Amino acid sequence: MLATATRLSYRAGALRINAARLMDTLHHTCQWGATAQHGPALTDTGMCRLALSDEDKVVRDWFGAELQATGCEVSVDQMGNMFGIRSGNHIGAPTVAGSHLDTQPTGDALRTLRDAGHRTEYPVGAVNWTNEEGARFPRSLHGSSVWAGDLSLKDALALEDVKSPGLTAGHDLERIGYRGSLPADVARNPLAAHFELHIEQGPILEDAGAQIGVVLGGQAYRWFDVHISGRESHAGSTPLDVRADPLLCAARLMELANTVARDLSGVATTGILSLRPGSINTIPGTVDLTLDIRHISDEKLDEMEARILDEAEGITKRLGTNGCSIEWKKTFQKAPVMFHDDCVGAITEAAERHLGEGGAQTIYSGAGHDSCSTARHCPTGMIFIPCKDGISHNPVEYSTPEDCAMGAQVLLDAMLLYDSKRVA
Amino acid sequence: MLATATRLSYRAGALRINAARLMDTLHHTCQWGATAQHGPALTDTGMCRLALSDEDKVVRDWFGAELQATGCEVSVDQMGNMFGIRSGNHIGAPTVAGSHLDTQPTGDALRTLRDAGHRTEYPVGAVNWTNEEGARFPRSLHGSSVWAGDLSLKDALALEDVKSPGLTAGHDLERIGYRGSLPADVARNPLAAHFELHIEQGPILEDAGAQIGVVLGGQAYRWFDVHISGRESHAGSTPLDVRADPLLCAARLMELANTVARDLSGVATTGILSLRPGSINTIPGTVDLTLDIRHISDEKLDEMEARILDEAEGITKRLGTNGCSIEWKKTFQKAPVMFHDDCVGAITEAAERHLGEGGAQTIYSGAGHDSCSTARHCPTGMIFIPCKDGISHNPVEYSTPEDCAMGAQVLLDAMLLYDSKRVA
Repeated sequence: MLATATRLSYRAGALRINAARLMDTLHHTCQWGATAQHGPALTDTGMCRLALSDEDKVVRDWFGAELQATGCEVSVDQMGNMFGIRSGNHIGAPTVAGSHLDTQPTGDALRTLRDAGHRTEYPVGAVNWTNEEGARFPRSLHGSSVWAGDLSLKDALALEDVKSPGLTAGHDLERIGYRGSLPADVARNPLAAHFELHIEQGPILEDAGAQIGVVLGGQAYRWFDVHISGRESHAGSTPLDVRADPLLCAARLMELANTVARDLSGVATTGILSLRPGSINTIPGTVDLTLDIRHISDEKLDEMEARILDEAEGITKRLGTNGCSIEWKKTFQKAPVMFHDDCVGAITEAAERHLGEGGAQTIYSGAGHDSCSTARHCPTGMIFIPCKDGISHNPVEYSTPEDCAMGAQVLLDAMLLYDSKRVA
Repeated sequence: MLATATRLSYRAGALRINAARLMDTLHHTCQWGATAQHGPALTDTGMCRLALSDEDKVVRDWFGAELQATGCEVSVDQMGNMFGIRSGNHIGAPTVAGSHLDTQPTGDALRTLRDAGHRTEYPVGAVNWTNEEGARFPRSLHGSSVWAGDLSLKDALALEDVKSPGLTAGHDLERIGYRGSLPADVARNPLAAHFELHIEQGPILEDAGAQIGVVLGGQAYRWFDVHISGRESHAGSTPLDVRADPLLCAARLMELANTVARDLSGVATTGILSLRPGSINTIPGTVDLTLDIRHISDEKLDEMEARILDEAEGITKRLGTNGCSIEWKKTFQKAPVMFHDDCVGAITEAAERHLGEGGAQTIYSGAGHDSCSTARHCPTGMIFIPCKDGISHNPVEYSTPEDCAMGAQVLLDAMLLYDSKRVA
């Protein structure tokens, strides 16, 4: 950790990402899990590469080989998280680029280091976190949560495939050969810093015409299951003024949550709603819905929650919904995450080097990412690039090759800036 | 059809329903299909006697035997509609009490005639209409619609069990021995008048403290399938002002329909709603819902429809739902039904005889009934009795023994008043 005054620190842009190679690699790896062709080109497909599937094994094998080819030592922990680390001038915890499945920009950053023969101060590398999405095994940030101590290894391995009850994550980790021996534990496998490049999954950067988003942190969020009971009755013979219609109550609740979110600059969403009995001429007896509320401030989120729950009581006294009752169950809550000044600073410096002052837009992440797991244990930062129409998790998800290359460039630069400052 | 000036016309209340026997019979027949025990008494059950099931056959056999025991001739038409007709002084089309499944009050009225040795002017009788509910074979007013010419016999017989595709109504009519030879055709099997006793299925009579409802007609109604397209996106990373949220759009549409219905004294109901993809942290991409609107006036219903469809366009330009699109498909519409002055008059006269002037409350039917099929072909009237809390189609549906007996009494009186006036 000795710094020498004469050492030149890294200057952003000194090493350049090979944009053409990056796109080739992106498309190359999309052969494993390509689905939902939606246009004439070979690459007009969606991707469906579920965690711990055969396709996941193939891309993991490919990624491991690529890491080794860039001079990394590859290890796999008990959760199948893959760490590829390239040594530096000093021994110490590595600065890494974390990612999941779509591990290519990270790979290209490491190839660039190799090709330039660049030696970092401390180790740098890449992590492929297991099952970030939680689509097949229903726990998002699955691998990184175990590493961070938010989820026990036992519970994580026992998690079952949503479509094949009894088939555990532990079983399939074993099956594809990625149940490693390295402890999935921040204390025994620490990181010096964690950077992550991701598409925004929203429309803010595109609307602002910004090519890079410097992510300041992640929103706090809370999930509720809401059960509304009313009075099932006949659509024709029940006048409006004697109805206790739980679906109209749900409608008013959704409008209320939207109004409160707007007033307090948060967001509120209902993504699931079901009702009983479900007949065209029957006022439902019960409605179940979810409510997802988010804010960058936990205090403001407290205020949102209190206002929604309080004002919802008024709805149960209005005409048409008078007599409905609302039960709330909070099923999940997540505190806000603030990223580290040093990481945010390195990303900003890198982005401004390429885009000019003000060329990087600060932004908060609305979604959960592995960086939210790492942020409480090591300095962490995230970079967003725009995605077309804010669409993600959809076959038509698209980011331009230029934005992908710029994202990889800023990632590389930010990691090297951070690394060089460890000895400054 | 000759009237003699000296003939005494029937005076309401001259013949009396046997209330105790009626209740015994009601409970006796509920052994066939009893379900959903909800209290300690033997009779604290719901009823599930699906059309053309084995239980339906048993109760039909019982009903046929009872009709014959009261001196009726029983015939069955091509749709399994059962006609029990008792001759009068004159030959002609019969005045009937129509009903479905719960055929007991009708039976008791005929027993009362038999026991009193009362001879009517013209034939009187009872009809058990097949599959009024449409729960198993999905067409309400199934049997009466064929008789009235609103549905072809061929289509009616080809209708399939909702839970056993391929199993037709024609097949099960044959199986239980109720596919008769009498033409299911108003022209070849005409009725002189049709009276029907039913529970209100709403809370109006109970709230008004009225024991008898004189039904003036049935509401017009229209059904719509509504498809709303929005933009599926992430609940966390999509700010409110760029959302095209089809579920919030549906919420605003339901509030709009409710407001318009209230302004114009109609009703509006959404009984079915589904959405895609259905994930707690994803703003849905599409929502499908039904809309049922009703009014006693077709012109007012036109106005309701126009206002809802017109103002819905405004919703697709509001913050949060801007950019949603709404597609409307009208799947069913029914003109209003007005019952016949002579039948309404007979029911009113009978009710006032027992309850005093003003003791009968006029009311419109919100639901469809077999009387809506008959009303366009013969003078028709309906009697409602209160049901507890307005609840029907539910195991806890309940009317008091006193109200059941009063309903049967008014039914008997109204039929006999109508019959006696045919020669006046």
